[in-house]
Amino acid sequence: MVGTVANAWAARDSSGHLSPYSFHLRETGPDDMVLRVLYCGVDHTDLHQVRGELNSSTTKYPLVPGHEVVGEVIELGSEVKNFKVGDTVGVGGVIGCCGECSLCNSNLEQYCNKMISTYNHLYQDGTTTQGGFSSAMVIHHRFAVKIPEKLAPEQAAPLLCAGVTAYSPLKQFMGTGKTIKGGILGLGGVGHLGVIIAKAMGHHVTVISSSDKKRVEAMEHLHADSFLVSTNQSEIKQAVNSFDYILDTVPAFHPLETYLSLLKAQGKLLVVGAVPQPLQFLASDMILGKKAIMGSFIGSMKDMQELVDLWVEKGLTSMIEVVKMDYINKAFQRMERNDVRYRFVLDVAGSNFE
Amino acid sequence: MVGTVANAWAARDSSGHLSPYSFHLRETGPDDMVLRVLYCGVDHTDLHQVRGELNSSTTKYPLVPGHEVVGEVIELGSEVKNFKVGDTVGVGGVIGCCGECSLCNSNLEQYCNKMISTYNHLYQDGTTTQGGFSSAMVIHHRFAVKIPEKLAPEQAAPLLCAGVTAYSPLKQFMGTGKTIKGGILGLGGVGHLGVIIAKAMGHHVTVISSSDKKRVEAMEHLHADSFLVSTNQSEIKQAVNSFDYILDTVPAFHPLETYLSLLKAQGKLLVVGAVPQPLQFLASDMILGKKAIMGSFIGSMKDMQELVDLWVEKGLTSMIEVVKMDYINKAFQRMERNDVRYRFVLDVAGSNFE
Repeated sequence: MVGTVANAWAARDSSGHLSPYSFHLRETGPDDMVLRVLYCGVDHTDLHQVRGELNSSTTKYPLVPGHEVVGEVIELGSEVKNFKVGDTVGVGGVIGCCGECSLCNSNLEQYCNKMISTYNHLYQDGTTTQGGFSSAMVIHHRFAVKIPEKLAPEQAAPLLCAGVTAYSPLKQFMGTGKTIKGGILGLGGVGHLGVIIAKAMGHHVTVISSSDKKRVEAMEHLHADSFLVSTNQSEIKQAVNSFDYILDTVPAFHPLETYLSLLKAQGKLLVVGAVPQPLQFLASDMILGKKAIMGSFIGSMKDMQELVDLWVEKGLTSMIEVVKMDYINKAFQRMERNDVRYRFVLDVAGSNFE
Repeated sequence: MVGTVANAWAARDSSGHLSPYSFHLRETGPDDMVLRVLYCGVDHTDLHQVRGELNSSTTKYPLVPGHEVVGEVIELGSEVKNFKVGDTVGVGGVIGCCGECSLCNSNLEQYCNKMISTYNHLYQDGTTTQGGFSSAMVIHHRFAVKIPEKLAPEQAAPLLCAGVTAYSPLKQFMGTGKTIKGGILGLGGVGHLGVIIAKAMGHHVTVISSSDKKRVEAMEHLHADSFLVSTNQSEIKQAVNSFDYILDTVPAFHPLETYLSLLKAQGKLLVVGAVPQPLQFLASDMILGKKAIMGSFIGSMKDMQELVDLWVEKGLTSMIEVVKMDYINKAFQRMERNDVRYRFVLDVAGSNFE
């Protein structure tokens, strides 16, 4: 038995071109909910996935991307107690885990070795998971967060992957009682939210960039406290040993030496950009300042809920460009040349799927 | 005014050959103590330093190495209250710091940017610091730890640099209430003490080595719980995602990929070996397991005192080879080809300085 039909946009092959596609949703179990998708954010990973650039041998076409999904609950399984029909909920990059290991039991389920990705992965029932570029989705209630009424659903979308990717590693610097000096490297989807989140946490935030071009947007649009050009040796020299952390969102190869030098003793370089080439460091740069390079992958469901709630509590606004589903191939092109400030969000419910 | 004459062994040039040398100790201030040196450990860094291989442009010859110094207090400045004449004390790699910054005030003085090294550095009074391959030393009381009577002074020597280099980063895994699974990479001066210290902390300890050659010494001499050959793919595959930490003491280039794969989620690669070539990692290996690479430099005075006290409390024994001062050039040669189990300690007080 299979579920109802969903209308989506899918890639058929590694050209990465998306076009309308219909498929049957998986059967709804007692712990599941059916969502009518309202909005879905567009992420670089979506582009890599549709082109089969990640684990190409296991890429399953037709492939429906999308893992920043905001939807309305339209049907509930008998065991779902924490949501009701009509709720607005968010779904991120993970839609399954074992639920039993120490990681699942300590709000680190995204690292569970039975973690299931929102799309291009196998669900427990053997069906291929499909993402949020789709009119509907079936989701286990554990992998949905409540989107408060005060938060516009399109605003919530980028928080569910890009936002939580920044929030999760920055959380360790909350509530220390000290003024935290943070750097944000890379002003894309994750980086721009990193600036907003770090500011909301009360940090002194510096945007670090290879040129002066982004100074105005960093300082005036995103309200960073400071802007540092990494190729300006005298500026860098003055800033050496001054950062508690640098959130490194750059997804392409870059030398780390300068950024490690900017960290104070015990400072942390937080790596969230999946650079395909190996990155390098000098052991002495780490040793002499007790410095660390730490990886971090999206965030837990708890992180997502905290971030959504923070957005409402502080009245924050992410900077997005809302487009219709049939703009997706153009959106991918523009995203690839960084021609978006800062995140495309698809108006899925308002789109044509024919 | 200068202090009394000390008899030492010094390098005169970058050949690194040591020979007898006499010099005036710096003047003794009210916070200082004069030590009669009893024993001094021999470290790889000593060899690099005498050859001018570290910061060669600032190497100051004649150079008296030695930074695992155990001595007897023979004279006290008027302000020294925490030691008395006749005490046995230990001195490590640091003999000065600003004393005022947040690092100095939080037992991280070895990272203070005014940190003064035990030798080949400038002291606050403008004199060149000289190390423990010397009949006597003048030391600010802040940079000495008490060596308990129950601990043989030659046993204490290697704890003061090699030991604390392992102890300081491992401390974070003490008292967690969980069984910690640790790996030790490299069985030299630091690595062998790393095994002993990690065992004393109650960890499950695996020695990781590139070949089977060290299995017997790891398991039978050092009482490791397990031995893992890093080139054995099936052994490695079984051990993936199982370590809370790996203490990486290897001072030469080595690929990190295998070791990162061995760490469980949130696991830490603790880097203490100053590899001159850049080390590499794949961002995805760090991101997907929230893994970290952390540097650590020797330890604080507090760490040193804790380690010395742990040695007495647990009745631990480091494995050393005690030699006389005039053996030092031979000792350097043997150390360079790893022909020592595991640390040379110079019997300074029992040596001939003519």
